[in-house]
Amino acid sequence: MAKVGLIMGSKSDFDIVKESIDTLKFFGVECDVIVSSAHRTPEQTIEWTKSAKAKGISVIIAFAGAAAHLAGVVASKTNLPVVAVPIASTTLGGLDSLLSSVQMPGGIPVATMAIGKAGAKNAAIYACQIIALHDTLLYEKLELYRKEMADKIAKDNETLKSLID
Amino acid sequence: MAKVGLIMGSKSDFDIVKESIDTLKFFGVECDVIVSSAHRTPEQTIEWTKSAKAKGISVIIAFAGAAAHLAGVVASKTNLPVVAVPIASTTLGGLDSLLSSVQMPGGIPVATMAIGKAGAKNAAIYACQIIALHDTLLYEKLELYRKEMADKIAKDNETLKSLID
Amino acid sequence: MAKVGLIMGSKSDFDIVKESIDTLKFFGVECDVIVSSAHRTPEQTIEWTKSAKAKGISVIIAFAGAAAHLAGVVASKTNLPVVAVPIASTTLGGLDSLLSSVQMPGGIPVATMAIGKAGAKNAAIYACQIIALHDTLLYEKLELYRKEMADKIAKDNETLKSLID
Amino acid sequence: MAKVGLIMGSKSDFDIVKESIDTLKFFGVECDVIVSSAHRTPEQTIEWTKSAKAKGISVIIAFAGAAAHLAGVVASKTNLPVVAVPIASTTLGGLDSLLSSVQMPGGIPVATMAIGKAGAKNAAIYACQIIALHDTLLYEKLELYRKEMADKIAKDNETLKSLID
Amino acid sequence: MAKVGLIMGSKSDFDIVKESIDTLKFFGVECDVIVSSAHRTPEQTIEWTKSAKAKGISVIIAFAGAAAHLAGVVASKTNLPVVAVPIASTTLGGLDSLLSSVQMPGGIPVATMAIGKAGAKNAAIYACQIIALHDTLLYEKLELYRKEMADKIAKDNETLKSLID
Amino acid sequence: MAKVGLIMGSKSDFDIVKESIDTLKFFGVECDVIVSSAHRTPEQTIEWTKSAKAKGISVIIAFAGAAAHLAGVVASKTNLPVVAVPIASTTLGGLDSLLSSVQMPGGIPVATMAIGKAGAKNAAIYACQIIALHDTLLYEKLELYRKEMADKIAKDNETLKSLID
Amino acid sequence: MAKVGLIMGSKSDFDIVKESIDTLKFFGVECDVIVSSAHRTPEQTIEWTKSAKAKGISVIIAFAGAAAHLAGVVASKTNLPVVAVPIASTTLGGLDSLLSSVQMPGGIPVATMAIGKAGAKNAAIYACQIIALHDTLLYEKLELYRKEMADKIAKDNETLKSLID
Amino acid sequence: MAKVGLIMGSKSDFDIVKESIDTLKFFGVECDVIVSSAHRTPEQTIEWTKSAKAKGISVIIAFAGAAAHLAGVVASKTNLPVVAVPIASTTLGGLDSLLSSVQMPGGIPVATMAIGKAGAKNAAIYACQIIALHDTLLYEKLELYRKEMADKIAKDNETLKSLID
Repeated sequence: MAKVGLIMGSKSDFDIVKESIDTLKFFGVECDVIVSSAHRTPEQTIEWTKSAKAKGISVIIAFAGAAAHLAGVVASKTNLPVVAVPIASTTLGGLDSLLSSVQMPGGIPVATMAIGKAGAKNAAIYACQIIALHDTLLYEKLELYRKEMADKIAKDNETLKSLID
Repeated sequence: MAKVGLIMGSKSDFDIVKESIDTLKFFGVECDVIVSSAHRTPEQTIEWTKSAKAKGISVIIAFAGAAAHLAGVVASKTNLPVVAVPIASTTLGGLDSLLSSVQMPGGIPVATMAIGKAGAKNAAIYACQIIALHDTLLYEKLELYRKEMADKIAKDNETLKSLID
Repeated sequence: MAKVGLIMGSKSDFDIVKESIDTLKFFGVECDVIVSSAHRTPEQTIEWTKSAKAKGISVIIAFAGAAAHLAGVVASKTNLPVVAVPIASTTLGGLDSLLSSVQMPGGIPVATMAIGKAGAKNAAIYACQIIALHDTLLYEKLELYRKEMADKIAKDNETLKSLID
Repeated sequence: MAKVGLIMGSKSDFDIVKESIDTLKFFGVECDVIVSSAHRTPEQTIEWTKSAKAKGISVIIAFAGAAAHLAGVVASKTNLPVVAVPIASTTLGGLDSLLSSVQMPGGIPVATMAIGKAGAKNAAIYACQIIALHDTLLYEKLELYRKEMADKIAKDNETLKSLID
Repeated sequence: MAKVGLIMGSKSDFDIVKESIDTLKFFGVECDVIVSSAHRTPEQTIEWTKSAKAKGISVIIAFAGAAAHLAGVVASKTNLPVVAVPIASTTLGGLDSLLSSVQMPGGIPVATMAIGKAGAKNAAIYACQIIALHDTLLYEKLELYRKEMADKIAKDNETLKSLID
Repeated sequence: MAKVGLIMGSKSDFDIVKESIDTLKFFGVECDVIVSSAHRTPEQTIEWTKSAKAKGISVIIAFAGAAAHLAGVVASKTNLPVVAVPIASTTLGGLDSLLSSVQMPGGIPVATMAIGKAGAKNAAIYACQIIALHDTLLYEKLELYRKEMADKIAKDNETLKSLID
Repeated sequence: MAKVGLIMGSKSDFDIVKESIDTLKFFGVECDVIVSSAHRTPEQTIEWTKSAKAKGISVIIAFAGAAAHLAGVVASKTNLPVVAVPIASTTLGGLDSLLSSVQMPGGIPVATMAIGKAGAKNAAIYACQIIALHDTLLYEKLELYRKEMADKIAKDNETLKSLID
Repeated sequence: MAKVGLIMGSKSDFDIVKESIDTLKFFGVECDVIVSSAHRTPEQTIEWTKSAKAKGISVIIAFAGAAAHLAGVVASKTNLPVVAVPIASTTLGGLDSLLSSVQMPGGIPVATMAIGKAGAKNAAIYACQIIALHDTLLYEKLELYRKEMADKIAKDNETLKSLID
């Protein structure tokens, strides 16, 4: 079955990455996780990226803060779809990692999600959506997940009533 | 064969959208193009989105400027992967459309590319990368395309020599 | 009597929304409150919006953070005046929700207030100002409210004296 | 019949203001236009604002660039709903006028539209939406206007086909 | 003797204003302090401004956060030099109050200091520099103050040595 | 009589500086103009600053773009009031020169005006306001100038009528 | 003799790079120039970087726009000092390339210059300053260059006089 | 042996500066540390800078927050390579000190590192890289340091496994 590769630039990003891991587990999708920096371990990053396809990885999610080059470096070595999750690890609130991830020049695409935990969750769902193009069961799980989000909001509205009245 | 759906918020975005269309043509991937606004034609946008899967569309690319809600509205009605291309149509240089596209809250992912033409080109390549997960021929074309980009740079280096000396 | 509809994208926004509810209560204006997301419950959002006029709602206030599409989605389905309150729910301090709310393209207006609690309070007052165009009593309350704000500042000046001397 | 008051900080803003005037004319709503600066003619601004209600004005639209104080100064002297249109008249692309307009502190609301022409058009439509709460004919015109926007997009899709094929 | 007028938009700004008061006290310059909002008490603001010269005020310092209109409104009613101190009272870190204060259109000058306490201190020193143009004693105090700042840094260097070795 | 010293970081700033020179001429205030960079001619900048008081200069206006250090360097060598005019000479629209000028740390004040020509004009008027504290004739000219600005707006309103009707 | 290596991400950056080449020529320092992208030709970039030291290169200057990863990728493969010149090649005015270059995480330094031509000129001078630490003749040229900059400003002041009087 | 000069604008920056000191110690490079402000002690700053070369200093690192002029002022008085570390000491998150440091006009280079501690560490490594051009032993230490960073990441991956499984 299709796997998702998760690569984070620093172990200190794990708090954010966990949001992706948990979401993938929820959908029953296996993942392969590594700490590897674009700058401190460039060879490892390239090796891991080049071997991803052979290991059955279909989508790669790259997590990085500051001048977030990781997703771009990964994307330069593979034609698997790469998703970037910018992390707010500096005093600029993640604007630096967002722009470093999203403003890729023409030719080497990187698909960027929101900064931080929301982005990490969505990156996992997005990977599932890609895999679900050829996995009907997973597609149904995604459809069900939407229903559950709507159900949760229905419950929130009931709680809300008691808050207001 | 897998198709890519292109939806633009305004006909004035066509100049940017064309970059995607041409890139998809280059890779021999069919596309389905529509002008439909999140705000001015919400029903049409929803109808088109809901019918996308049945029409054989695998990936949707949404193009919008200003408060760019189009990709988010589309993503709210499908579990197909949605790619956003922010367009710089206001005096804020596309920062508005970038943030409106990328900062999606957890649950409904939108994958955002760079602002403008570079993003439009990359959105098309990204759609091809997704489709190529199950299309070996297209995957080979993507690999070849990378070689051609490298070849072009080799030629640029020859031109450069004459510029310097 | 005219009512104000309040729609928030997530229950976690309630802290901000309460500022509007309390202000409307202060002016004796009834309100109708719902949690409904532009992305997670789009049908509910559209249904609620379409039924607003028939329920006696005159003005709608939409609260959302991040890529705040809610006000725009609501505005696309009604000709009632829509007011947006951007919420600072990400690491970007609300700049994302502000631009997503205010930079609406021509044709579908959304009236944006300040980010957060100040905006929530003002949205409620603004709704009252609209209703007061045809409600003399409410208009007088608004005039009185201004006098009370001025009175409070007069008292602040007395406190101030003791702080300085 | 209800009128809309338009106040611009400088005659050089007329190019933007015209977008509002034309839109109001289209909807058959009368307007009262003045050049009056918050800083260079504060008395005139205050006089005009205080007399607005008596002149039959229901909504005021204020246009200003740079440190755009005009809408706030107007709002401080009336309980009529005030709409601000920020204008990009400096090297900061309108970010200065946007923040100066929208970030009003609690107590005195200003409803801000998008920067420039889109905002000017929407301010006029918004004023019409407010007036239409008690003017069925105008409400119908607004509903019709939406249909015409949708029709225009339908035509755009036909033009598009010829551009692509 | 020349006095400095301090006007703050809200009593909650007092924490910042105190930095100016203390600095003026240090230099032996008298001050006249008031809470008065550009929007909630516009008449009081105008009255106080118009009477400033007759009361012996030479320089006015205006403190405000958010869409900081106070300095501009004060400047519109006097030809005394007006200094603005932007306050970071919203989620935008004071960028809103800075731009609202500094980007004044041609004709009505406002001299803007840094955001927050540094700006409040400098506004007081600046007022002293203006007064010192015709007050030799105060000028000497300002020269002495610089020497003391340098002395303090000399002491810091001694402390530093013990920290490093 | 009191003079105003104008110092610009580069001759290419003259276009902006001229706005100050013309305004000072209009008010009959003499000026002393120099090109001197904080970085390329630091000694000259310091010499000129230190000799300013003896030459009868009362206020210094410093013009600089990019990382605009000139006003700060000048202010470090004098207790005359220093006014900064940030210039938009880079691709960042003057945000760099604005922040470099205005965010002075506590102890050494610099009074910052708007970016570019509006700031240059206002810097000159501000210098006149400072000088006018002890020059009744100049004060009257400033009062008259305000009346003329108001008169100009009155004329603009007449022109406007012909544009609308 | 020490050489400077110049690497640009795209031939379209040559206009900016030329400013560095011309400055290095002026100081008589040899350079080695290549077009090589971090993303489109990652192997070539790594090869060139790894061979730089053996070729006698002492300092590397990397030029890139958008999500400018080039300097970081180069720095990850060498302990030669790397200088980055961000280029404003998108609608965000170079803020994206500036943050992508300068916000490097701890461990792998990149020294960033100003955006565009000023940065390109300064990068070349900076490389000369590094080389001049062990090249007295070059150091003297740098000292002379400063004198010439000051002389040019002296001439500018003469031109200025004729412009003003 | 070559030394590195560290100059900080305020003793309150010591927390950041320590990161540089510790890194230099790690590499066995001596340093010379001073507190000296561009604005409060300009003469001391100039004296220290002018005497740096004679004291055996090869590289200068300047630390400053807010309108960070220190690196520029230092660079204006020496042809030694100057490195700037911007510090986030205001409500703007260091954007002010970053732009004040990096946007130097052509002619006087300043090499800017990341905001805060990451920048302080990298500034020290960068100084070592410059010195290592003529110090083989130091160069080897830098190469070893990279290996240790990679080793640390290898260990992080082992820890990670236990976190996930």
